Amino acid sequence: MTKITLAEKEIPTHYYNIIADLKEPPPPPIHPATREPIDPAMLEPLFPKALIQQEISHEKFIEIPDEVREIYKSYRATPLYRATRLEKLLKTPAKIYYKYEGASLTGSHKLNTALAQAYYNKQEGIKTLTTETGAGQWGMALSLACKFFSLNCLVFYVRLHYRQKPYRVSFMRMFDAQVHESPSDLTKIGRKFLQVDKNHPGSLGIAISEAMEKVQDATTKYALGSVLNHVLMHQTIIGQEAKLQLAKAGDYPDVIFACFGGGSNLAGLSLPFIGDVITQGKKIKVVAIEPETCASLTQGEYKYDFGDTGQTTPLLKMHSLGAGFIPPNIQSGGLRYHGSAPLISHLVNLGYIEARTAGQTEIMEAAKLFTQTEGLLPAPESAHAIKGAIDEAKRCAQTGENKTILMNISGHGFLDLGGYQEFLDGTLKVK
Amino acid sequence: MTKITLAEKEIPTHYYNIIADLKEPPPPPIHPATREPIDPAMLEPLFPKALIQQEISHEKFIEIPDEVREIYKSYRATPLYRATRLEKLLKTPAKIYYKYEGASLTGSHKLNTALAQAYYNKQEGIKTLTTETGAGQWGMALSLACKFFSLNCLVFYVRLHYRQKPYRVSFMRMFDAQVHESPSDLTKIGRKFLQVDKNHPGSLGIAISEAMEKVQDATTKYALGSVLNHVLMHQTIIGQEAKLQLAKAGDYPDVIFACFGGGSNLAGLSLPFIGDVITQGKKIKVVAIEPETCASLTQGEYKYDFGDTGQTTPLLKMHSLGAGFIPPNIQSGGLRYHGSAPLISHLVNLGYIEARTAGQTEIMEAAKLFTQTEGLLPAPESAHAIKGAIDEAKRCAQTGENKTILMNISGHGFLDLGGYQEFLDGTLKVK
Repeated sequence: MTKITLAEKEIPTHYYNIIADLKEPPPPPIHPATREPIDPAMLEPLFPKALIQQEISHEKFIEIPDEVREIYKSYRATPLYRATRLEKLLKTPAKIYYKYEGASLTGSHKLNTALAQAYYNKQEGIKTLTTETGAGQWGMALSLACKFFSLNCLVFYVRLHYRQKPYRVSFMRMFDAQVHESPSDLTKIGRKFLQVDKNHPGSLGIAISEAMEKVQDATTKYALGSVLNHVLMHQTIIGQEAKLQLAKAGDYPDVIFACFGGGSNLAGLSLPFIGDVITQGKKIKVVAIEPETCASLTQGEYKYDFGDTGQTTPLLKMHSLGAGFIPPNIQSGGLRYHGSAPLISHLVNLGYIEARTAGQTEIMEAAKLFTQTEGLLPAPESAHAIKGAIDEAKRCAQTGENKTILMNISGHGFLDLGGYQEFLDGTLKVK
Repeated sequence: MTKITLAEKEIPTHYYNIIADLKEPPPPPIHPATREPIDPAMLEPLFPKALIQQEISHEKFIEIPDEVREIYKSYRATPLYRATRLEKLLKTPAKIYYKYEGASLTGSHKLNTALAQAYYNKQEGIKTLTTETGAGQWGMALSLACKFFSLNCLVFYVRLHYRQKPYRVSFMRMFDAQVHESPSDLTKIGRKFLQVDKNHPGSLGIAISEAMEKVQDATTKYALGSVLNHVLMHQTIIGQEAKLQLAKAGDYPDVIFACFGGGSNLAGLSLPFIGDVITQGKKIKVVAIEPETCASLTQGEYKYDFGDTGQTTPLLKMHSLGAGFIPPNIQSGGLRYHGSAPLISHLVNLGYIEARTAGQTEIMEAAKLFTQTEGLLPAPESAHAIKGAIDEAKRCAQTGENKTILMNISGHGFLDLGGYQEFLDGTLKVK
């Protein structure tokens, strides 16, 4: 476990927009009725103008506002570690590096975009942000960001994970966020699901619908923690930092692993490297690891579908299991999403990214091996990336290849220890 | 929240032993029967020779072993932050700095000594370490350290906190530690308390007795997370780093705050500065903040007393509430100790350190203010230091003094969110 840091002046100053480097941009969102590309102005009730501009931008770099960068400096650059103790245990000739976003103030990469989104909303006079959260990492991040920029925060927290990971609720409340189990009786769509089952476990698709429905006046807007172009772009500071840090070690990745739900942590680490593939002809294999019970990239259809279960969003061209799909009960709540980021789907379609699945018990086994050697407990979501990296390193041990593997530990697992306890007790199940 | 870091080469290479700088050393441990100073060799069944040497050493600096320093590099130097956002909220002319030990692999300062203790035990052929833990931070740290140095780890976890903070149990188990609620039926002393109350809440004093009782063969030894000289000395890397970091900001503390249970985090931050007071005539006020329900320094008597409730240790000269004292039920389990480190008691007695108390609700209010401004959730133990620092900063706001305040955030509070939930719900009570 060798740590590679950056000096403060090396922290990125711009977000990287890969769309500027693509020959063809991702297919645009379309209107469900007309099936024509939507006018970006249609998004203005939901998002501030600055973020809509970023959503459709073809500029290669977008400057990070000073106020946001100042807060980034309090936890960034996050460390890049070489997993020397894990390598030794696996007796692999491969080099394994991991970027550790668990070092953020809220414990995951989600804070990178939460701060930017809160800032731009505040700039445009917004008073309240509504949002959904799956495992709760995004809700934690937005709660902090809203408090830092003096906004109210209303969170719809998928019921299954609200109950499974109650400490995350308390964390959000420490920042004065209002947190509701979703589906809730505060919205039409919520009440619809509660009628069927008053303890409905919920899904990200439902929680998104609820959060959007609560945008009912001009000073309230909605914030999304993944999927959209601007969200993914804010995360590219991860990959930009990792590239600089690897350069200090004289290294460059052959393979990149990240877990995949909506797509933001995969995008954050890999897009700056995929940019190198496109513009410099570099050869890198980028692998998204999905839970086998919610595998949109590997088992979904690449088609236009709604981003939410209530069918209120524009149609997005993405790999989807269907907007009505309610994923089974697993611990990795951040990955329980029926769809996928259109930008990532496009890159999968173009062959820049491939996808694999992993089961819940095997990712927890990978997490335990990683924790025991590297000393850092990963979120179950991040454990998907670890599973991918360990399998690759083992393969290298057989073939003798000394590949350079890079992965994203998108968050720590301190607040997921309820799930780890089930794993240790042998009672962990997909329900 | 301005972060001040150190380069890898600036991470301390030695532990600092303040005893070398004291005109008179702390009174020695004495034998309960003879009341004569004990022969250090009497400690050999419990501790490896290297640690006994450190315990009685008068050398000013003791070199950190390379194998330990390599692991320190994975999480040290921990950041020193200036709490600019908190200062602004308090409208204070004071400067508030905090050292953030929550950035360690296990989330608290305890790892600094756990790694050293596991290393020296391993060097002397030990196979198993037994220990006690209050809130669980020490148990987490020793579990990791034992796994890293291939030792077995047996933990007696004070029942009250085992049940209050169950995630810490799972964390220890991720490193294959054996964790038992204390008092347990595995020891004579445990069974004695279980006979009185089969759900006895336990105390550090009882858990220490249980852990010591389980040292029954030559390959098993005992590890203590605070109180003893060598443990406090391992923590001095905190203050050494802080001094370098403050120097980069062109600053030096007027007042230092740390919470106080056994004394290790207070010692870690303050001893290198108290060394300056002794050797350079610097003027610094060092303040220990204790829970009002377990206030050994402020309400205890400075006398020879047992370190454990089972009365198996030598007698230690310390401020004590009595070895039989069972502290009330509070969230700050790391501070529920009847005694105090003899070295700290000695420094209190000499006038280098003063002590105050704080109540459970007011420390949680301080924690909330700190979390909302600085974005880092502290452990309830560390919140005692915050309460002290905020009071001082408010006082400076009234007097106009621009003092430099330094405090130790000894650990993060992610695994204490059950307690914070009670605070937010208004149900938090001393029971």
